[in-house]
Parts: sequence; structure tokens; C-alpha cells
Amino acid sequence: MKTTETSIKNSIRNNIKIGVLGGGQLARMLCDQGHKMGLEVHVLSQHKNDPAALVTRHWHKGSYTNLKDLKTFAAKVDMITYESEFADTQVLKQVKSKYVPSLKNISTLQDRLTQKISLTKHKLPTSPFIHTSDEMLITQFYKKYKGFVAKKRMFGYDGYGTVIVKNKKQLDAFLKLSDKDNYIIEAFIPFKRELSIICARTSKGQFIHYPTIESVQKDAKCFSVKGPVTHSKSSTLIKKLKNYLTKINYVGVIAFELFDNNNDLIINEVAPRVHNTGHHTLDSFAIDQFSLHLHCLLGHKVPALQPYNKGFAMINLIGSKKTRPKLTVCKQSKLHWYEKKDNRPGRKMGHINSMSSSADKALLNCKKDLKGFDL
Amino acid sequence: MKTTETSIKNSIRNNIKIGVLGGGQLARMLCDQGHKMGLEVHVLSQHKNDPAALVTRHWHKGSYTNLKDLKTFAAKVDMITYESEFADTQVLKQVKSKYVPSLKNISTLQDRLTQKISLTKHKLPTSPFIHTSDEMLITQFYKKYKGFVAKKRMFGYDGYGTVIVKNKKQLDAFLKLSDKDNYIIEAFIPFKRELSIICARTSKGQFIHYPTIESVQKDAKCFSVKGPVTHSKSSTLIKKLKNYLTKINYVGVIAFELFDNNNDLIINEVAPRVHNTGHHTLDSFAIDQFSLHLHCLLGHKVPALQPYNKGFAMINLIGSKKTRPKLTVCKQSKLHWYEKKDNRPGRKMGHINSMSSSADKALLNCKKDLKGFDL
Repeated sequence: MKTTETSIKNSIRNNIKIGVLGGGQLARMLCDQGHKMGLEVHVLSQHKNDPAALVTRHWHKGSYTNLKDLKTFAAKVDMITYESEFADTQVLKQVKSKYVPSLKNISTLQDRLTQKISLTKHKLPTSPFIHTSDEMLITQFYKKYKGFVAKKRMFGYDGYGTVIVKNKKQLDAFLKLSDKDNYIIEAFIPFKRELSIICARTSKGQFIHYPTIESVQKDAKCFSVKGPVTHSKSSTLIKKLKNYLTKINYVGVIAFELFDNNNDLIINEVAPRVHNTGHHTLDSFAIDQFSLHLHCLLGHKVPALQPYNKGFAMINLIGSKKTRPKLTVCKQSKLHWYEKKDNRPGRKMGHINSMSSSADKALLNCKKDLKGFDL
Repeated sequence: MKTTETSIKNSIRNNIKIGVLGGGQLARMLCDQGHKMGLEVHVLSQHKNDPAALVTRHWHKGSYTNLKDLKTFAAKVDMITYESEFADTQVLKQVKSKYVPSLKNISTLQDRLTQKISLTKHKLPTSPFIHTSDEMLITQFYKKYKGFVAKKRMFGYDGYGTVIVKNKKQLDAFLKLSDKDNYIIEAFIPFKRELSIICARTSKGQFIHYPTIESVQKDAKCFSVKGPVTHSKSSTLIKKLKNYLTKINYVGVIAFELFDNNNDLIINEVAPRVHNTGHHTLDSFAIDQFSLHLHCLLGHKVPALQPYNKGFAMINLIGSKKTRPKLTVCKQSKLHWYEKKDNRPGRKMGHINSMSSSADKALLNCKKDLKGFDL
């Protein structure tokens, strides 16, 4: 084989040991895609039936909040990444390893308050907010913005830890909470649609992003995604995101969830990790978000990301009962089942991806196949 | 979720335990795709670093030629399939399990002589052959067909076990062999190109096939594949293949390697398993050949197979030295590395897949990316 200088510089030193904290579906897909790149992916999780534990020989039983488990794990791998932003950075700090993204970035972005302060500081568009337990200030904010949404600073996801305050009764209930300090209070943003941009930055400083997608939530949880979609403000925003990631020296994949407020794009939330709205990339792009995250960690030069087709889509397979789900043979979608042992209402059990000549056609492919599932 | 009667009938009873004999790349990809379908895929292989052993928690150390290992393995799974047709059916017969494809079919098709007799009996187009150790008959055959190719009846693959006899000196050398009985002697077929059709039949009797592809061999080994390609005789041949698989009650994926003899399609070899020329389906079809094989085993109704794009291609990543290979970040191809611990000249180490608006463009994508590898 002929080898150019560029390609050698950009070579994958295969057999590098990547450690992933957590054993859910995101860790599972990091394992699957890492394997295809020739990487040895190790997982630290508590149960041998965790989705990621089933797809790697290098599963280690333990908790990443336990110092001893973490030390043993760190000794086995070359670097550590996360499937969730809610790692306890105080514990991680005590164990020497190469953490990517950095503990500093994880620490800032895992707390919705410090995340919001960071976005505001870097002049990124986001909703007005306050953080206070002062009842008068909260009431003023409520009146000014005709309601608000209070979000737990830590450990919130898929709507968990979110309180909607739209009327006086809800306001009174919120004011009675003793832990108001654990919340960030954000103004409601009336929006036309929700979008998402998955970006990434390599350890060598290269910035990359996937096309903007539209996501639809059901019960505060991602239900479907289609793309690419366009917005007049997206290229301006992407430039700002690039500057932001450079400023904070971020490394890895990062998802920006956006409100399309007719005229503007407003950042709703930031997830410093691979993200549900990027799962479509497993099938629609030569380099999917999981591979991309690993390339970032390893400092590989990443080529422009091009979709294989004009449209792509994803639908989450979400549990609706406690009995074993019935899957089907998909016709035009690719099935990614997570092998979770228990079905539960609201639980993300898998997803299906499709591609077609347009975003809507791709989504229609998924919707047709979804009908065959009994979840 | 709404569930139609059809979809329930066709439901995947997830968590079924599939046993795969062998731990190479074919077993690895059966694991990967089985996991995505919610199946528990168990592997029986000898080394913990075998490609398939690295991607499933259900790896069992052992050899499928060892009765004790096989018995232990069979007790753990609901059915057994193979990654290689060279399983010792005499050993397998002694261990009760549900073998798919059947031991009878494996036994017939693993021996190039009985395979050839079976093809001929069912009036499928294949090259003239003899099986004899009679020197005079061999010499006559040599003269009639202006040379021949002698293939070991068992355990031949990628050119191993093949003797080319094109001149008197080569003929004399062949005649001196003491184990001529272990060979089948076939006439040379002058061909324009080599094609392949991957077919499948479910345990409920449904026949399915992927579009015909063209393959290019280097050093008797599959180098690249592109498709779809057309041939005036392919639909007639596919009808015959359907009848053949029905007659022999075959279940699973099966590959037919063909010579395109300008006018005719002639079957060169049959592989009763997932096949290198079908690896492109991992990315180009909603249902890839590995998932399809598992669907066949489980008797699922399979929808028509449609490619995501007009053209698709694959190139094998073949070792050319003994040192650790250097991989690259592919631009328009998807990398499937097998994590084999040792690089060796001629060894299949991985493959790359691509799609585009034509077969040639897809192959070009792969060829461009191939340049970045140092194997």
C-alpha cells in the first residue's frame, strides 16, 4: 500500500485503550464504533448486563464514584472519557488519568448554572435566567417572562428535574421548595421548532460539525430527529460555537440543543458528550459521532463530514410498558437495540435510523418501520 | 405503539441465544449485528483475542472439534450456526442441537466434490470436472480443456489448496501427488469478470437475494466488490438458485461465486455462510447479510432488500507485512477493522465500505481512502 506523509501523520495507533465511565447505550455505541477503529474500549459500570458490558471483553465491574474502582480502572487504560456529563469531578480529580473532555470543562458544563454563565460570558445566545432563592426576585422574574422553567442544576435529563411554572398555583408550589438553590430559573422561549447541532473539537484544535437537525420531543424526551435542516442564523452561530470551544479548550463531541425562535437560534442546553440527536450519524455518515468523539480524543485529523444521502432521520424506540417488547424486521431502517434487560415506560430501549432523498422521506421510512414494534 | 397482526407474527423474540462456531471476523460481525437485533450471541473459539471474542460477553473458550467443548457450548444456546463451512459434521452429529444450516447441507457443500455433484444434479451451470486418481483420465481431461485447476476438496479458501495446471511440467507435478483423491479437477473457465450473488432462505421457506455484485480478486483473494451490476442471465439463474435452495431445504445466507463467461453465468464456488462479497451490505442495506442470516435462522419474514444508494462498494484491508498496520481516518468509507492481533501478508485485517450514486463512484471512494492505510 502506498502511504502518504499526511496519512501517516494521521494514522490511527490502533490498540490504544480507551476507558469509558458508564455502561449505558452511549458507552455501548462508543465500544461498537471504537472496535471498528481498532481501539480497545474498556467500560466501568456496575452491572454485567449493562448495554455496554455486553459488547466488550474489557468490562470492569465497579462504580466511577468509588475511588478504589476508579483507580483500578484508570490503571488499565490510556485515557478516560464519559458517557454522561454527571461524573463526580471531585472524585475523578483524586485519580490520575488523561480525562477527555477535561475535568474543568465537564465540571462547568454539568451544572446548568455554570453552563449558563459560561454561555453568557462567551456571548452565546441563550435564554434569560436567574439563580436565587429570594422569593421576591423569583416572583418578579415570573411576572416579567409570564412564567418560567426551573431546572435542577445537576443530574437532570429527559425532563427529569424540570419544573414548569406557568400559573400562580405552580409558582406558589415552587416558592415552597426548600432547595430552590439547586435550580436555575429560565425564561420560557416560545419556539417554532427545536434544532440541534453536534460539534466536535480534536485535541489538536480542529473544529468539525454535523449539519443542523430538527428534533421532536415527546414527554420532554427526544422522539425523532431529521436532517439536514437550514436556518438563516446557523452559520453565524456555528462560528460562535467554534470560538467558544476554542476558548474553553474543549476536546470531544458536544451537542448544542437549540430553540428556533422564528428569527433567532437560542441555545437551550449543552451536552458535553455524544448525544441522542446524533445517533443518525451511525448510518448516515462515513464518520459517526461515536467514532468522531474517539478521533477527537486521539487528535486525528478529521475530513469534512458528508452525509451518504440527501436526507437522514432517527426515531427512538421508547418503552411504553413493563413487559418484554416485541421488535420487528425493519424494511428501510437500521435497528440499533440496546439490549436493556428491563422494559419500562419512558425508557430509551433502542433507535432506528434511515436515509432517503430528503429528510422527510427518511423520517417517513422510520415512522413506517416504527409501526411494527410493540414496545 | 400500534401493533399490527403481521408485525406480531414477525416479531423478533429478542434475547434468543445464538451460538456461533468460530471466532473470526465473520463471527464478529454476526455478534455485532445480532446484538443490534437484541439477540444474545455466544461464540465458541480457542483464543480470547479472537475478533469475535472481543465483542461479546458470551465468549466460550474451546474448539468445536472437541466433543466436550461442543457439548458445554450447545447446552448454553438455543441454536448453532457457523462462520466456516469446514465444521466437522461427524463431531457435530454427536452433540444434540439445532444446527442451521443443517448438518446435511453443510456436509454436502463443504466438500467441493459433493458440492459440484449437488450443483450438477440440480442442473445448475458449473464447470466440467472429474474426480479421479487415474493418470490417463487426468491427462485426457488436461488435453481436452487445455489445462485445469485442481482444488482440495476440503479446507481450501482464498486460493489455499488450489493447484493451477497449465502446462506439461505442472501436469507431471500434479500426477506425482499421492493424494490426488483429495482434489477435484475442474476445467478452466475463461471469464470476463467474476460476479457474486448472495442469497438467503428463511426457516419458513422465504427466498431473498441481494443484487448481483462484481468482485475483483488479487492473489486468489477477494480484493474489492462493487454493485449493483446487471447480466442478461442473472434473473434466470436466480430462479434456479431459488429452486435449488428449496430442494435442498437450505436455511441461512449462502453465497454463489460466479464466472461471467460473456454469454453465461457459471457457478464457480458455493459458500454456505455469510460471505466476503456481502460485507458491503453492513452499510448499504437496511438489512445486512449478518442480520439476514440471523433472521433466516429465526424464521422472520424479511422485506424486499433495497440499497440506500444507487451504488455501493467494498475493499478488503489485506496485510502486506508483519508489523503493526497504520490505519487512517476514512473520508467517504466506513472502516470495519477486525482487531486481529497479528498482521500478516495476505491476511484479511478489515474492510472499508462506501456508497455513492454509482457502483464505480462508490468503489472510487474506497480506493481513495485505501491510500491512507499502511498495511
